[in-house]
This record gives sequence, C-alpha cells and structure tokens, in this order.
Amino acid sequence: MELWYTEKQTENLAFSCRITRTLHRERTPFQDLAVVDTVQYGRMLILDGMVQTTVADEFIYHEMITHVALFTHPNPERVLVIGGGDGGTIREVVKHQKVKEAVLAEIDRRVVEVSREFLPEISCGLDDPRVTVLYADGIKHVQEKKGCYDVIIIDSTEPVGPAEGLFSREFYQAVAEALKPDGLMVAQTESPFVNADLIRKVTASIGEMFPVMRLYLASIPTYPSGLWSFTVGSKKYDPLAVRFEGELPFPTRYYTPALHHASFVLPAFVQELVAKK
Amino acid sequence: MELWYTEKQTENLAFSCRITRTLHRERTPFQDLAVVDTVQYGRMLILDGMVQTTVADEFIYHEMITHVALFTHPNPERVLVIGGGDGGTIREVVKHQKVKEAVLAEIDRRVVEVSREFLPEISCGLDDPRVTVLYADGIKHVQEKKGCYDVIIIDSTEPVGPAEGLFSREFYQAVAEALKPDGLMVAQTESPFVNADLIRKVTASIGEMFPVMRLYLASIPTYPSGLWSFTVGSKKYDPLAVRFEGELPFPTRYYTPALHHASFVLPAFVQELVAKK
Repeated sequence: MELWYTEKQTENLAFSCRITRTLHRERTPFQDLAVVDTVQYGRMLILDGMVQTTVADEFIYHEMITHVALFTHPNPERVLVIGGGDGGTIREVVKHQKVKEAVLAEIDRRVVEVSREFLPEISCGLDDPRVTVLYADGIKHVQEKKGCYDVIIIDSTEPVGPAEGLFSREFYQAVAEALKPDGLMVAQTESPFVNADLIRKVTASIGEMFPVMRLYLASIPTYPSGLWSFTVGSKKYDPLAVRFEGELPFPTRYYTPALHHASFVLPAFVQELVAKK
Repeated sequence: MELWYTEKQTENLAFSCRITRTLHRERTPFQDLAVVDTVQYGRMLILDGMVQTTVADEFIYHEMITHVALFTHPNPERVLVIGGGDGGTIREVVKHQKVKEAVLAEIDRRVVEVSREFLPEISCGLDDPRVTVLYADGIKHVQEKKGCYDVIIIDSTEPVGPAEGLFSREFYQAVAEALKPDGLMVAQTESPFVNADLIRKVTASIGEMFPVMRLYLASIPTYPSGLWSFTVGSKKYDPLAVRFEGELPFPTRYYTPALHHASFVLPAFVQELVAKK
C-alpha cells in the first residue's frame, strides 16, 4: 500500500511525500491541523493543507529566521515571536544567552499542544524558563505594546487565512511601534519564484517603516520552489554590518557567520523584486 | 480536464506540474525523451522521466554552470560541453567574447533535434558560428583529447542511465588530461538534500585530480529539493580569487559578480559533505 500527502503549492504545482501514517488531524477554531509521518522528511506539521515544518529540514527555517536578527542586534534581551506555535523559532531564540525574555504569541493553542505531543525535538525550547507562551492574536499584541521589544520575529503561515493581516502595512507599523528605538524585526516573506508580488509589496511596506530594509534567502526543500525569503526591518542595526569574532557560541547546521552575509547576496531576478531604499 | 506531469524525484517524493499538453514524446536509442507544456514553468524537457530544463527556470542552471567557470578562467578560448543537448549551456558559453571554439559532445542526437524544434529560446546558441556539435559519447571524446580545452563543462543528466560514467573517478582523470595545463572543469553534481553521498564521492574524486576543488550552489525550483550543486576542478585558477571590474559584459538574470562569490558560501550541513582539500 502507498500513502501520499499531496500539497497543491499553486494551482499548477504539487508536492507529494510518501507517508507511513497520519499521527493527528483536527479542525481547530482557526485552521485544519495535521501531523503526518513522511518517509523522506520525518514528521511533518501541516496547517490548512500547507507544510509548515518537518523534522528533517526545520533547522534551516528556524535557524535562518532567528539567528540573522539575533546576531544583528547587539543586545537582544526581549524577543517576541508571532506565530511559530511549533516552537522551533523559540528553541533557536533561547540559544542566545543575551535573551532575558522570549514571548511567543500564537493565536492557535492547538498548534502548540499538538507540537508538544508530536514534535518534541522542535517544541522543546518552549520549556525554557525565559519563555512566555501567550495564546493571543499577534496583531492585537503588538498594537498594545509600545517600545517594548528588541527583536520581533514574524513566523507566520502563508498570507491566507489567520496570517493574512501579518503581511499588511498597518501591521508593520504596529511592529515598528512595539519595538524599542533601536529594535528590529524579521518576517518570513515567501518564495521569490511563487510569490514575487508579495515580496514587492512587503519590501516596499517594511522599507517605508524602517530606515534599514534587507531581504535574504534560504533553501528549504519542503516549501514551494525550495527558495524562501525573509525580510528584515531595522531602526538602527544593519545585518550587513555585523562582524563576527571567533566561532558561534552554539552549533548550527545551516547558519554560519559567512552564510549570514552570503544569504543577502541576491540572484539578479530577486534583486529586481526588492523595493529600492 | 486536468493533465499533470508527475516525477518521482525519489521513492518517497514527487513533483507535479499541471500541463496543457505533451508536445513530443519518443524513445530514442538512449532514453525516453519528452517535451510537455506546463502552466507554471512553460515548456519542459524531460529525459527518462526527470525534468532537465524548463523555459521559466532554465536561466538559473545554464548561467550558473557556465559563468562561474568562464569568468574564473582568464582566457577561455576553447570550451567543451559534455551533454547539454538542449543547447542552453552553449548559449551562455558563446556570450563570452573570448571563446573562439565551443564544442558540444551530446550522445543523443534527438535531444538536440527536439530542442531545436520545441525549445528555440534555449537551443538558439547552437547556431553560433563558433559552435561545433558532435553526436558523440563525451567519455570517449575526452579520452581522445590531451591538453586541448581551457574549460570543460559536464552538463549531464542524473547519474543513472547514459550519464552514469560521467560521475566516475576515471572520467574526471580523463577530463583533467583533456584540459590544458591551466584548464578547469565544472560539473553539475546534484542536490545536497537528496544526493549527499554522491557529493561526498564526487568532491573527493575531483579533489584528487585537481589542485583546486570547490563546490557551489544555486536554487533551481524544478530540480529535486530546489537546491543544486556544481563542482569545480581547476589546475590553476581559483574561482574564489576572481575579481570583477565594472559590470558584466552581458545581462544576466541570476548570476552576478557578488553571487559568484556568495554561491560558494555553503550552509554548514553542505560544508560537511565536501571532501577536505
């Protein structure tokens, strides 16, 4: 018997993984949530029919959304993660000893609970004593905070469903206000091959709100096209100006000091998508 | 009605594109050859059930397999392309004005003929007066040449079927002998996610044959995992030592001088696959 999970990444493109079984499936108040066990990539978290993370390749997304920002800020004491209920980003955040408080604002409690049950190697960082998990709408949370965070990481799902508002100009303005005067944000901003218009719009919006705006890339095999973008908005610190001394304070599997810089070197067609500063 | 092309990229992973129709299909003496029209990526060349190139993303593979090598060699007058019957690599090679002779050694005449008919935007470079097309086994061709070429580009299919011998230690030795004393080679060497063992083996073999061995990466959405590797073996010139002055002499869509260098900056897990020099 063959069992396959198939995701229609676009109307015209599909990605399929052979699975051994579904470990969990439910309809939460916010979305369809599933965990399946794939042969190629291990356990996979799926929200509304889209791969969020897999045990085999999650290190790439979580290292790259976290460490670029946290090594750019010289003193990232207070960090907010919006979305990211699987806990992978928090796990990377708490590797930074300078972090005193890490807040996770996840709208869907079931994502956290199911990740704790089925993806312990990803969710384990949620048990760090510096972590506070809020089951809250990230948009409302940042609207209520002013000058509060050093770093805000927007670890959202696709720009449809519950995450749609996390790609809006108004949201980035609220994020800017929730940051301290030298704070910075980073957001996952989809694939340059599949979501070129979104990257144009988001880099323009973030560029309006922040004096420093930079796009960088990472290769994530379970996401559409395999090439993924992240956008930094920073009030003061430029990720391109970071200088590393010696080795990183903890081991990594994707991110390195040299790759920090190389990930901002964009292919010509991607450079053309990025709003001019 | 929905028509889909599905490729099993591994036993446990499949990639599917919606198509409007098959434009061509035949069994050549060497392989199964097809051209289909996909909605997402335009016309697609398929050999033995594996995507070789598409009109939408071919520029990445062809620019990256060609320009890194041809800008590394200061005077690439004589260039050999092994495989690459679609003509895309040759099209990029002849953009370099220093090239006086470009030889294509393609074992399967039908790949060239079908590409000329259905993929004119890719095969067009084959009409350049500096180009010679040989319908020949690339392995035999390099065995017969000694100190002949400045650059040899191994633009092969997967390491199964007709291309299997193009990943062997003996072949790289013959390539080294077919190069001039300051020549260099580059080969497509598959995905670090899917073909880690092949990368270990190939970088070790090329590292044995050449004083300079370097692996670099590019993002190609229609290839397994979306991340692709290329390996350079060079007798003298190091691609990391290249310095660019001013703009490139022709427009590109992926390759840039900065990306030339950034593409050699490897994620930590890929660096671990590469044989030590």
